[in-house]
Amino acid sequence: MPEKTAITPTRNDNFPEWYQAVITAADMAENSEVRGCMVIKPWGYAIWEHIQHQLDAKFKATGHKNAYFPLFIPLSYLEKEAEHVAGFAKECAVVTHHRLEAGPDGKLRPTGALTEPLIVRPTSETIIGAAYARWVQSYRDLPILLNQWANVVRWEMRPRLFLRTAEFLWQEGHTAHETEKEAVEETQKMLGVYEELAREHLALPVYIGRKSASERFPGAIDTLCIEAMVQDRKAVQAGTSHFLGQNFAKAAGIQYLSREGKKELAWTTSWGVSTRLIGTLIMAHADDDGLILPPRIAPVQVVIVPVTPKPETKDAVLDAAQKLATELRAQTFHGEPVRVEVDTRDIQGGGKNWEWIKKGVPVRVEIGPRDLAAGTVFVGRRDRGASSKSKESHPAATFASGITALLQDYHDSLYNRALAFRNENTKVINSKEDFYAYFTPKNADKPEIHGGFALAHWNGSPEVEAKLKEDLKVTIRCIPFEEKPEPGTCIFTGQPSAQRVIFAKSY
Amino acid sequence: MPEKTAITPTRNDNFPEWYQAVITAADMAENSEVRGCMVIKPWGYAIWEHIQHQLDAKFKATGHKNAYFPLFIPLSYLEKEAEHVAGFAKECAVVTHHRLEAGPDGKLRPTGALTEPLIVRPTSETIIGAAYARWVQSYRDLPILLNQWANVVRWEMRPRLFLRTAEFLWQEGHTAHETEKEAVEETQKMLGVYEELAREHLALPVYIGRKSASERFPGAIDTLCIEAMVQDRKAVQAGTSHFLGQNFAKAAGIQYLSREGKKELAWTTSWGVSTRLIGTLIMAHADDDGLILPPRIAPVQVVIVPVTPKPETKDAVLDAAQKLATELRAQTFHGEPVRVEVDTRDIQGGGKNWEWIKKGVPVRVEIGPRDLAAGTVFVGRRDRGASSKSKESHPAATFASGITALLQDYHDSLYNRALAFRNENTKVINSKEDFYAYFTPKNADKPEIHGGFALAHWNGSPEVEAKLKEDLKVTIRCIPFEEKPEPGTCIFTGQPSAQRVIFAKSY
Repeated sequence: MPEKTAITPTRNDNFPEWYQAVITAADMAENSEVRGCMVIKPWGYAIWEHIQHQLDAKFKATGHKNAYFPLFIPLSYLEKEAEHVAGFAKECAVVTHHRLEAGPDGKLRPTGALTEPLIVRPTSETIIGAAYARWVQSYRDLPILLNQWANVVRWEMRPRLFLRTAEFLWQEGHTAHETEKEAVEETQKMLGVYEELAREHLALPVYIGRKSASERFPGAIDTLCIEAMVQDRKAVQAGTSHFLGQNFAKAAGIQYLSREGKKELAWTTSWGVSTRLIGTLIMAHADDDGLILPPRIAPVQVVIVPVTPKPETKDAVLDAAQKLATELRAQTFHGEPVRVEVDTRDIQGGGKNWEWIKKGVPVRVEIGPRDLAAGTVFVGRRDRGASSKSKESHPAATFASGITALLQDYHDSLYNRALAFRNENTKVINSKEDFYAYFTPKNADKPEIHGGFALAHWNGSPEVEAKLKEDLKVTIRCIPFEEKPEPGTCIFTGQPSAQRVIFAKSY
Repeated sequence: MPEKTAITPTRNDNFPEWYQAVITAADMAENSEVRGCMVIKPWGYAIWEHIQHQLDAKFKATGHKNAYFPLFIPLSYLEKEAEHVAGFAKECAVVTHHRLEAGPDGKLRPTGALTEPLIVRPTSETIIGAAYARWVQSYRDLPILLNQWANVVRWEMRPRLFLRTAEFLWQEGHTAHETEKEAVEETQKMLGVYEELAREHLALPVYIGRKSASERFPGAIDTLCIEAMVQDRKAVQAGTSHFLGQNFAKAAGIQYLSREGKKELAWTTSWGVSTRLIGTLIMAHADDDGLILPPRIAPVQVVIVPVTPKPETKDAVLDAAQKLATELRAQTFHGEPVRVEVDTRDIQGGGKNWEWIKKGVPVRVEIGPRDLAAGTVFVGRRDRGASSKSKESHPAATFASGITALLQDYHDSLYNRALAFRNENTKVINSKEDFYAYFTPKNADKPEIHGGFALAHWNGSPEVEAKLKEDLKVTIRCIPFEEKPEPGTCIFTGQPSAQRVIFAKSY
């Protein structure tokens, strides 16, 4: 008989429903009655706050400042870049009126029609470009290195919490440069920042590379990305950095007088990550007992659960728990005080413990009268599963001083597990037959069980991509950066291929 | 001949234009081409970030958590509370379509009409109420103490940067409680948080009290507020805290099973401050040479300007400047490291110095070869004006260790100046004739020069309020909290009055 799990269904039984159940069990977010828009609950939002805070520090360390631009984009702005508007036209929330008035039936209806419709920003290249066009006169005004933390809206027909919602929270960096070289370097630098965020903060190993032409951001010359593998072996595009060339500068009129006294168009970039990162880390790390959080972005890193079976020892146990919390908070993890919660709620049984398991808190510490007598604490690491057998007794005296190392070890273990999983499920494929077999589910009942990532040669043809998407729902996730790309033969056409690319199904 | 000022016009010449010019000179924000929507530039946004950060800590210290709710509100939600929708119907941005398609003329137009229009949130009582109704079953689920940092939209016909914009950034707290008493206490507690923010962080003395019925938030039982006086002696409502009774709980269906097993409606509150605070502090503190920032929210608290007239001493001066910066950064002001910038840009003359004056940086430190030789630094405090005569030489050796005290003294001086100004311009008025004279400009050319705040008796009549608004554009700013309210006689009706209330013109 299989062990009972806190989450039903399990990952194996039904991955999409397991995902939704993990979010509910951790009390992170829920669907609202507004189609495709989610409510981010405190536990989910606190994770976002930590991601924001830590990523923002990286932006500032690389010379960027924050600013804020309008939510609404005039339709005419969006139209200035033809590919761009084509890419977003089908998913735009459009504001057409600016007041409500009661009609003859007494019901309120929109009035005050706008002369030009306003689009709720799906992304801000065009509105920010218009500002940069006002700000830039000379090469001395460049570079402009700004970021904004904002909400954006892309009308989604098949929403999924965090991964794909009509409204989502994100940051969007927008920079303008004097030279192509500088802009290309910026695009790469910010991809590096995202890779570091994924690796060091979210414990996510990611492939980095560039998108094929058909997967590029609408209007971009080049889209770089980080691609993560989650536990159903699909890919999630977790962040993108776009080299926009002079396309948006031309559309918006970002012109500068060069050092040689000539009018030139600026070179621009944009780059973003969103609340989608939270969906990615859930799918990558959580297990059949619920969420497993990487410690750097966990709202609570250590929870202390006092066990107080007898009234006569209760005060002593609670005192010891508070004392330990104080000791732990005096320690730091990556420069921040360790985040500790003491769960003093008056709930009996294992309920409290299970709640923290489902919320993914990295380290759970139980202190009871026997621990107190023995000078120990009973420690559960969330990365080692929820079973009580995985808990260990530690000497209380040295537990606090070892917490930084423990959290780092926990982080590394999460990262290494995800890396091993990804490597096990990334296969070099050398024939079309193998490729189709790899991506065809063995069991029709479980369409989600398929190969994983495939490394295969491709001749660069968008027709091949379209066919694979249609046949297998497989796309090129990225053309990985390689120091020495090895040429070969496209397995679909027999034509020359410059290097292997990464194929996968994706969210 | 009047002294030349960095800002034209001066406060006396034209207060509204002076305000706009201060913002431009400090490079804080600008109007966008989207009607009523502003672009908040890095200097303005950094001020907002500090306000956010510091206020957020106060929210968390008082037991609140952050969450995030949808941008869009279905029209039917808004309609559930009659007063509420009436209050906002005239200024709603309405989303009616969810895609764009080319028409026969090739031009894009909105398609995909929504079955129910969505309102871009002007405030979130109704959408958050709907979530709380899902979350609350029993008294054990209460209280809910949440806040959200978000953008909101209220269509403005006469926008003014920061003070009144169609889109603005704010926080909105929304709480639900078991008892009326708890909700009333929460409303008061959060007003206290705002008063403290104004006083200790923004150096703004504010009156606190409740709004008259006609000035209440639409749907509230009671609206408490902080009211600041700015330098044209008008009032700015800088923050509000609403006791909503059971109105919104009834509209949204926030019901709980009480301790006695009965179905009861929850009691709710909401409270908010916005980017309007930035407009308030500009109008309250800035002078004819530009912005003057309270130190706690200044993006840069100390700027060091190396003076390098001769190549042979340049390196020594730059070294000394960097060394001083390091020493200053090791000091703290209210628990945060002192924020220091060294302006090493290669600009000659007084340009750099004036730039920092106009940006309102509290302390400017010049270091030149002569200072180096004498072991001194030359210090300008922004609160003492921009004139070079106001600068003082300090011993370099002790300057850093004294910076915390200097910044606190600077803060106190700003606060005390604003307090003295407000007190000078708050007058007890005892007759209708005096009241009308007080608020009637002496000089038709300068309608902004009028009395200030008036403390007068009023019988509680909304008709009196309406008449004063029409005649003088004067409103009741608040009914101040007083330990022992002194009754008297309404100066407009001769009827009994419970206490004096504060009248003023306002933004």
